[in-house]
Amino acid sequence: MTQPATQGTYPYPDEPTWSSSEKAIARTIFDAALKRELYEVIQKAKRMANQINKPADLWDLELYLTQQRKDIDSKYDFRSSRLTRVFGRLLCERRASEEELRGLRQDKVKAIRSCAKALSEDAA
Amino acid sequence: MTQPATQGTYPYPDEPTWSSSEKAIARTIFDAALKRELYEVIQKAKRMANQINKPADLWDLELYLTQQRKDIDSKYDFRSSRLTRVFGRLLCERRASEEELRGLRQDKVKAIRSCAKALSEDAA
Repeated sequence: MTQPATQGTYPYPDEPTWSSSEKAIARTIFDAALKRELYEVIQKAKRMANQINKPADLWDLELYLTQQRKDIDSKYDFRSSRLTRVFGRLLCERRASEEELRGLRQDKVKAIRSCAKALSEDAA
Repeated sequence: MTQPATQGTYPYPDEPTWSSSEKAIARTIFDAALKRELYEVIQKAKRMANQINKPADLWDLELYLTQQRKDIDSKYDFRSSRLTRVFGRLLCERRASEEELRGLRQDKVKAIRSCAKALSEDAA
């Protein structure tokens, strides 16, 4: 879902522009967070499966996997118009660290931080 | 989904009547087959989960569980109007044995056998 780093377009007109080099850095952070999250889901699915001892546990595992797949699909969206929000959520959920974001330009980090703050306030 | 053992009604007018005592026998066979099938699914899900080593394996497990849940939901239907078909399928899939069916009246066994035969011919 890679798009050219043009100025944010409809419906995200205020989205900052991401240059190619910034997108390369963003891709590294994004892929690392996705890999970590998938690893967690794999470990939890293995634990859940190991503990199955009645049919209801089986369908709980199915439900867990379906929810995780949908959540991951909607969360990890690499379109330029979504990156601030995506990283904001990853920062809010501690799936990406301030340290990782350091490679990005200051305007991006600020926007991501402010998005993370808004999300954590919404969740509170 | 227990119904009174009345003569088969719309849309299954030719379905034989199942008396209460026959339904009790049918229930035992039905429950045993369901229990065996669920046990198989649990064992396979545990094996699949143990062997997960990439995200695609995770979603293969989800798909397997969803398919099994739907298949089991549609297969195990204890309404009188469906029992011949249900046991026909269980016999065809070797999930219920001729020996187990022996407790039922001869007309039922004949109808179940003929249904199993038709299903195995369809599958061939």
